Amino acid sequence: MSHTPAYVVALDVGGTSMKGGLVSENGVVLLSERRPTPRADGPEAVVTAIRDFIGHLAETGDGNPAGVGLAVPGLVSEDTALYAANLGWRDIPAQDFTDLGVPVVLGHDVRTGGLAESVLGAGRGAADFLFLPIGTGIAGAMIVDGAPYGGAAGWSGEIGHIPVFPDGEQCACGQYGCLETYASAASVGRRYAQRAGLENAKAEQVVVSDDPIAIEVWDEAVEALSLALATYTLLLDPAMIVLGGGLSQAGPALFDPVRTRLVKRLSFREAPPLLPAALGVDAGMLGAALLGWRAAGRPDLGASWDVDVRAAPLVS
Amino acid sequence: MSHTPAYVVALDVGGTSMKGGLVSENGVVLLSERRPTPRADGPEAVVTAIRDFIGHLAETGDGNPAGVGLAVPGLVSEDTALYAANLGWRDIPAQDFTDLGVPVVLGHDVRTGGLAESVLGAGRGAADFLFLPIGTGIAGAMIVDGAPYGGAAGWSGEIGHIPVFPDGEQCACGQYGCLETYASAASVGRRYAQRAGLENAKAEQVVVSDDPIAIEVWDEAVEALSLALATYTLLLDPAMIVLGGGLSQAGPALFDPVRTRLVKRLSFREAPPLLPAALGVDAGMLGAALLGWRAAGRPDLGASWDVDVRAAPLVS
Repeated sequence: MSHTPAYVVALDVGGTSMKGGLVSENGVVLLSERRPTPRADGPEAVVTAIRDFIGHLAETGDGNPAGVGLAVPGLVSEDTALYAANLGWRDIPAQDFTDLGVPVVLGHDVRTGGLAESVLGAGRGAADFLFLPIGTGIAGAMIVDGAPYGGAAGWSGEIGHIPVFPDGEQCACGQYGCLETYASAASVGRRYAQRAGLENAKAEQVVVSDDPIAIEVWDEAVEALSLALATYTLLLDPAMIVLGGGLSQAGPALFDPVRTRLVKRLSFREAPPLLPAALGVDAGMLGAALLGWRAAGRPDLGASWDVDVRAAPLVS
Repeated sequence: MSHTPAYVVALDVGGTSMKGGLVSENGVVLLSERRPTPRADGPEAVVTAIRDFIGHLAETGDGNPAGVGLAVPGLVSEDTALYAANLGWRDIPAQDFTDLGVPVVLGHDVRTGGLAESVLGAGRGAADFLFLPIGTGIAGAMIVDGAPYGGAAGWSGEIGHIPVFPDGEQCACGQYGCLETYASAASVGRRYAQRAGLENAKAEQVVVSDDPIAIEVWDEAVEALSLALATYTLLLDPAMIVLGGGLSQAGPALFDPVRTRLVKRLSFREAPPLLPAALGVDAGMLGAALLGWRAAGRPDLGASWDVDVRAAPLVS
């Protein structure tokens, strides 16, 4: 008598750390752990570390998961990690990531987070929306007709590099006036430190500071975001915009002025609602769990799961 | 014995004129005519004029078309013209547009042109691209996963009003620095006339002029377009960008500098190819013919049609 294993292994691979978990078919996170990504040791070492981590997580179960879901950066198809500049990867088949002999499905990191917000989080019930995590960098997941949209070749969602101020400051990417260079958490901290003559500063400080320089830096971040979101709204007509990532923890200090400016930048149409992401730092791992269940032939799972991690992250 | 009629009635309803035709199941345009849109006479008069035009076209056939396809402006679903500011329409059922008792399918004007370029024109074989007609105004049809994408509520594609120069000139829409206010054919003519102190001017003159003022106005139009296309590319990763409308007649004077600037505005990815539209002013009517065949239960038609109207428009 065959028995379908009751869990999948889910892994969200970032440049610094990997968040892993075991997730049941009812959406219960049976286990979650974090390990460092050994990026400095080269592309092959990262693949080996992923293989070991998956093996370890599976063993903590009964050693026999129904499938594996993996969120990775760069250019990715369901069965191949095609290219990741920051990990040095080229054309790595999904099966290389595990020796368990179970089906594996890969997903793009940001779009896998968007999938989770779509099925389990703030975007439940919305077929068309933008999921925008604002952290060290800025990239978006565009949910289109109910699914994350990759574009013609998998490079969609680079909203962090649209030119919001065409004659603005130079971005690390080489271009000028990119959204990311004004509005990412890292940029807000860096720009304040530079102008205030400090060694360094955190975005969290800037948001709450009364210093006129901090207020100016924050105002420019808000203006850049409003311009980018007005552009997205005019092009894609989303039902909502879901803001996530570290900077979204700023709460009303972010949402209120961005909402006001977004409305002001739109003349002949209403602004879509701005909502906070529901899944926090676990979005990627939970999206990977959905991919794992797809690998296991259960794409139907997820809609009935009851996941609420807003209060406390699963993986700390 | 029942006999399927061998043609549909196709109508492209613009603010100034309506282009109509009879199109066979092999894609042969059996007849094409143009009539003025009696917009000044009110919303109901336009509906009546459409009904009369469709009746007249059908009569010129055997009076019994297989279906009717209608491209209309504003907010539209397949079976209702929901809202059109410039025609004063609200919630007009598709069946009101004909008394022939045959199935009718409606489509948004720009997206119906995009459908035609997708199935019959420059975008054949591309599942993901932008069709951008540049005329009096600027609006785009976004082809996503093989079909025109309307967004959450049907308002997508308003690329003419994205803020390319956030501190720029005021647009007729009330906002500042919109693409359309720099790069539409009407704006290029208007801006040159204003700066050169002329009563009026045409974009065609500006494009070929040696006058430094004309060169500056054209340069700003090219810059605005490049910024908008870089933004579109970063967000949606299109396989190509198809430029149409009156301004695309400028040929290399438009395509060459826009291509150069688009490449320059993208640092970590290649620019998609820029191609001229293939169907010219007939795109809307041909797209309406595809909708007419869908109404008739033949969504399969189109891919095998051999339409080449680049040399001479069908409807003049």
